[in-house]
Formats: sequence, C-alpha cells, structure tokens
Amino acid sequence: MTPTTPSSSRSDRRGVLSRRGFVAGAGAVGGVLAGAGAATAMASYDGGGGGDAADTIDLAQSVPFYTVSHQAGIETPPQRYCVYMTFDLTSRTTRDLQVLLARWSAAIAQLTAGEPIGAVEPTHGNAVAPDTGEALDLGPASLTVTLGLGPGIFGPDLGLSHRAPRLLHDLPRLPSDNLDAATTGGDLSLQACADDPQVAYHAIRDLARMGRGVVNTRWTVMGFGRASAGQGQSTPRNLQGFKDGTRNVKEPADLDRYVWLTDDVGWMDGGTYQVVRKIRMNIETWDSDRVDDQERVIGRAKVSGAPLTGTRELDTPDFTAVRHGRRVISPVSHVALAAHENNGGVRILRRGYNYTDGINAVGQLDAGLLFIAYLNDPDHFVRVQTRLGSSDLLNEYISHIGSAVFAVPPAPRSGSYLAQALFA
Amino acid sequence: MTPTTPSSSRSDRRGVLSRRGFVAGAGAVGGVLAGAGAATAMASYDGGGGGDAADTIDLAQSVPFYTVSHQAGIETPPQRYCVYMTFDLTSRTTRDLQVLLARWSAAIAQLTAGEPIGAVEPTHGNAVAPDTGEALDLGPASLTVTLGLGPGIFGPDLGLSHRAPRLLHDLPRLPSDNLDAATTGGDLSLQACADDPQVAYHAIRDLARMGRGVVNTRWTVMGFGRASAGQGQSTPRNLQGFKDGTRNVKEPADLDRYVWLTDDVGWMDGGTYQVVRKIRMNIETWDSDRVDDQERVIGRAKVSGAPLTGTRELDTPDFTAVRHGRRVISPVSHVALAAHENNGGVRILRRGYNYTDGINAVGQLDAGLLFIAYLNDPDHFVRVQTRLGSSDLLNEYISHIGSAVFAVPPAPRSGSYLAQALFA
Repeated sequence: MTPTTPSSSRSDRRGVLSRRGFVAGAGAVGGVLAGAGAATAMASYDGGGGGDAADTIDLAQSVPFYTVSHQAGIETPPQRYCVYMTFDLTSRTTRDLQVLLARWSAAIAQLTAGEPIGAVEPTHGNAVAPDTGEALDLGPASLTVTLGLGPGIFGPDLGLSHRAPRLLHDLPRLPSDNLDAATTGGDLSLQACADDPQVAYHAIRDLARMGRGVVNTRWTVMGFGRASAGQGQSTPRNLQGFKDGTRNVKEPADLDRYVWLTDDVGWMDGGTYQVVRKIRMNIETWDSDRVDDQERVIGRAKVSGAPLTGTRELDTPDFTAVRHGRRVISPVSHVALAAHENNGGVRILRRGYNYTDGINAVGQLDAGLLFIAYLNDPDHFVRVQTRLGSSDLLNEYISHIGSAVFAVPPAPRSGSYLAQALFA
Repeated sequence: MTPTTPSSSRSDRRGVLSRRGFVAGAGAVGGVLAGAGAATAMASYDGGGGGDAADTIDLAQSVPFYTVSHQAGIETPPQRYCVYMTFDLTSRTTRDLQVLLARWSAAIAQLTAGEPIGAVEPTHGNAVAPDTGEALDLGPASLTVTLGLGPGIFGPDLGLSHRAPRLLHDLPRLPSDNLDAATTGGDLSLQACADDPQVAYHAIRDLARMGRGVVNTRWTVMGFGRASAGQGQSTPRNLQGFKDGTRNVKEPADLDRYVWLTDDVGWMDGGTYQVVRKIRMNIETWDSDRVDDQERVIGRAKVSGAPLTGTRELDTPDFTAVRHGRRVISPVSHVALAAHENNGGVRILRRGYNYTDGINAVGQLDAGLLFIAYLNDPDHFVRVQTRLGSSDLLNEYISHIGSAVFAVPPAPRSGSYLAQALFA
C-alpha cells in the first residue's frame, strides 16, 4: 500500500476503537473504554443508523421546489450545510419586490434541480452570464432555498401593511441578548441548505446578485456542520460536543400542531414563522470545564446523549427524579428549561448549524451555532428563550449575537412564485 | 410523492438539462445549449469521472499518518474541505516544542484513524476531557493533518538555527501583495483536510487546545470547496467559476522532481516547502465582466476548461498560436504567465480551497481562494508570482491578503513523531 492510498477504516481497523465504536460501546458498557467490545458496538451502530448517519452522501438527490404545501427546507431533514443571508429592501416600489420574488422563484427552481440559472457562456461568451459557474459539475446535493419576509416588508412604504402576517413583529429584547447590529434583522431572508456547501454558497451568491438594485445584503452565516435532526436522521453534535436536537419536532402531526399556519392571514396558509439566532459559543471556556459539569449544564450524558435520568438518547427525561436529595436533572439545566413539558407544551422545530468566524481579537476560537427555528407563533420562541436567558446554566458559555424574525410563506405551485398571493 | 421526499435527479429528470449535462454537452457541441444532447453528454461525464467527481462521498475512508515517506495531505488527492491554521510559538524552550510535536503527532494519528484523542468521559466524567467531542459519530473522512515549521523556529531563541532547512526564508515583498498582518506569518502551520468539514475543524480545534501554553493561534482559514485536482480527480471550480488546477502536478515522477526534498538538510529528506496565500477575489466585480473577457483573462474557456487554443480541458495550451494577428492566448493571461513552459520549467503542486468571510464593510461578498503550494524551493513561487503580480490580467480581480512559508518535514515512522530528527 502506498502511503496515500486511502483505506476503509471499517475493514482495515483491527481492534482499533473508532470514534463510532467508542460512542456506541460507551452506551453499552457505561462509559468505560472497552476495546474488545468495539466491533460489536460498531456493528450495532451501523445497523441502527438512519439518514446521513450513513458513511456515504449521495449528491445526485434533489428536493422539489414547487409543491402544493410548505416550502422545502423546513420539514426537509436538515442537509449537511447551510448558507443563510438576510437582505434590506432598497426599493420602495411593491412592483420591484414582486419581480424579485418571481425571478428568485424561477432561479431557485433551477438551482434545486441542479441546473445553472441561464447559460454560462451566452452567445459564445459575449455577455455577462446570469450564472457565476462555480456549481457547474456539481449535483443538486438536495439543495433547498427557503424565503422569509421580515417585518419591514409590511411597513408603511410598500402599502402591504394590511396584509401583514398576524403574528409577525420584531422580537422584544430578551435576557441574555448581546446582539450585534451587524448580525441582526433584515427585510428578506434566504436559507440555502445542501449536502455540498459550494452548491449552497453558489445559490445565495447568485440570488444576491440577482437582487442588485432592489435589495442589499445585510448579514450572512455559513454553517459547516448539521446540528439538528429531522425525521429518520441520527442526532448530530454541536460544537460543545453534545448531541443537539434529540427532542426536535419530527412527526407530521406535531409539525401540523406547532409549525404550520392554518388561521393566520389567508395567503400565509401552509406557511410558518422563522426565528434565526446567531449564538456564539465560548468554546474555549467550555473546553476547560469538566465533563460532569458540562453534563449538569446540559442535563444529558455527553457521549450517549441520554438524559441524566436515562441510559439511552431517546429516553424521556424525568424532571422529577431525585437522588441524594437533589434533582438528577437540574431545573436550570438546558434540557429542563427548554423542555415542552416545562413550557406549557410549546414545541419549536429547530434547524441548527455549526459555524466558525475563525479566531477572535484575543486569539480564541470564534465559533457557535446558527439556530433557525420554525414555529406557528414567534412568541413561542420568546417564551422559551426568556426562561433560558434568565436562568440557563448554559448562559455562562453562550451569547446570542444575531437575531431576526421572518414570515415564511407557503411553497409556490408550479407556474406561480413565492408569496404571489400576498400581491393578489 | 410527498413534497420533501428527495428524488434522484438523474433518473427523474426527463429532458431537463442539469449543470452536469450542460457542462459535458457544451464541450461536445461548442458551448451551444443543446437539450437533446444532455443525456448522452451526461452519460459520458459519469463514465469519465474519477475521484470525487462521483455522486457519492465515502466518509469511512482513512489515510495513514505514519509512513516511511512524505506527510499525508500533500500528494493525497485533495479532500473536499480544509481548515488551515498558523501558530506563534510563545515558549522559548526547545523541549516545549519537542513535546508539543510529539503530542500533536500522537493525536493526529488518532484523529486520522477516526478515534477520539482520549476518552470523552474520563473516569465517569469527573475531569476535563482531552477530546472536545464534536467529531464523535463521524467517520475518519480521509482526514489528513500536515505540519509546517516556519522561519521563526530557526531563529536565535531555540538554538536550532544550525539545522535550518536550507531554502526556508520569509518571502520577499511581491508585486500585487496587499498583505494584512492579521493573516500573515506563523511559526507553525497545521493543514487539516477532510471530506467532512466538522472532522477537519475538530482536528484543528483540539490540536490548538493541546498547544496552549506553548503556542498561540495566529490566523486561520476554512475552505468550503476543493479548488484543485490531484491524480484521478476531476478538476473543480474556484469562485470565479473556472476550473482550477487542470495543469497541477500529479505524476509521481513530477512530484519527485518539483516537490520532494532530497538534498536539503538531512532531517528534511522526503519533506518539502509550503507556501500559503489567502487570495481575496473581488467576485462581484468579476461577476459583472463579460464571459469572453473572463476567458481572455484566464486563457481558458469557462465551461469546458479548454485552453483557448484547444477544445478539451486537457489539451496543451499553444502559447504561440495567432489569429487575426494576435495571440489566441494572451501573453498576460493567467494560464500563460503561470505556465511552466514560460517559467523555466518550474512547476508547483497546488492545493486550493474556496473560502468566504461573509460580507464586507460595503455589503459585497467577501470570498476567495486559500492557495497552498508545495514545492522544493519557495523561490519557485516567488519567481512565478513575480511574473503574475506584475502583469497578470487577473490582478484587477484578486488581491493577495495573506501569506506565510513553512518547511514541511517528512512523515514520522510509527513510533516516532513529526520532525523528531530535527532534535536528534
């Protein structure tokens, strides 16, 4: 074997404990590193994995844009990567917005099908091309692009205030807010998720370019790792090393109950609301904390993801369990404060991505979580975040630096465009 | 079909021209959009693709760290993602450096095998864990971590100046340099490449953490898309939408001739030099240029990647061809100025990655190319870049904002550590 020939870790590893074997093995034997058990543990992991827990990613998959119901990118099982961008409307003309949404819709349909938006070499090259070209050769990679309309769209300028989604309003100031104006707000949002980050970046780039003269870019985050789970997916880890999204909304019945709109303004039927937060994690401080304290802060075991009252990830947390006179899961742990059992039944569909901004001014790693939530009332987020921000043990390690809220219209049917009914 | 069920774009697309079909078809019919030819063209593309041109990525692959020759991550066909970081040495003690390199080597061996670096829940959690955990559950993803030693290591402080690699010196100021001190230099460099960016990020994070007290982080770039080709790989595109790396060094004989050291200081035998540049691309300006002018600037066709004197990507450029009294490939095009034929035969192994820094202060997309070169003499880069920086048509659209140079020792054999022979 030459030094650079890749080998299959699964077949070539003999008795070496992989990260996967370690994880599965740890669940089975109580956290003790057990080399002999690795093969079995790994086999059971491989058997039980679903979605992109698999070792292979298929970049030929595509997700339809035109549907009769909800925009893609919400209940769609989270793809691996995300580029999120918000925009300020610079035109005061409703017609300009309408044309932009129509043009964006046509382009999104092409992009999600893996097509360029127009020829790359028009008339043998003697023109500016509509497509910038860096996604040529790449598959659709399950790209979805999801549009949001911010409160500014329904302000006095455009004459659309009488059609404003009922519950759309700027979020109030929340405890633990440490917002940076440079990563806050926006009149429009685009969330591009794909299993190839260059496909997602290309989509946002070309849509931003198409918006020139009508919108300006406002802020953006590129997510390099999935940090939430959809139906059929294994639970990924955020940059605190914990599984994130174990209790996410996944069942269609729950989506109907907590996410999709049915009695907002009529043109929003089948739509939802989007709350986005850029959450900086002080990962260097976190890394210096003992694992047992990290687990107390989260309320779950780090390796298995099980609640501290259980042994398996999907075990339901028991918030009443007491040991040695104290709650096993601290009432101010993250899992306890965020749990729907402790929030009047409120549940929020989360789509999270890990991000990094490199190194900060004092040489520490600057990284965190792009948190995108979908819910049928933005105040559900306000409610939960008010509790979390007031007393969450996690607050020592995180900081909400970006925020915005949007109304997310339903998907366009073939032949129409996003939010077309708004203008009807 | 429910709206969110992914479908195979290849089987479900009926007469729809994909980006791939478009590309392959354009090569066959001279840039004319030909829907009818798409199926055939796509079939030939799929048949001819190699490496990660395939639709699937296998994250179970691993690349050995310990070898008898060169460090992995140089001739290794470029993985999809890269996290690159440089460090400043804060200790003046040779022993500290030696211990760090030994610890890094042991950790890199574990990381590249897909193992955590030590238990994640040590002694049931009552300690700070050596591994931060976010790559648990993820495969090895062909991770490689490549170490470089900067000129500062051989300065007066550490007593190693008598063992300095012969050709290691800071780069001179070059035409078109627009360097930012915040993205320049470093005493040590780590290049982590993998087919999962979270695996690469985790590696750099945990190695940086391990270096506390001996090194400080200096600058970092995360590359989100491969922009160079190795042996057996299709040529990817950079953010100018052009294929990048068509003429890269790929053959073992050429690597021996242009990359690997055989007569430098003895402990560097089998090593090489690394020149890294962070190259900002003014992509919004580029996007407003006509495609025929873009092709004149590069010297190649945008879609096919063929030199302007040829029809296929791999055709050898003819720098002497004349049409209507003018050179077909401009002598100041990028391909002409960079060609080994026009640089005394000098060739440089390139490993490029697309990066983005989001949006700049005036609202434009801030993005570019992380350019990492391997070569047996850093002055080869100086020679080529001096020509490029002086007259390259491309200079209007790019800016070299980051730079550093490193000596890259050979790989450690099993039982030893990186650069161990330096201290012998």
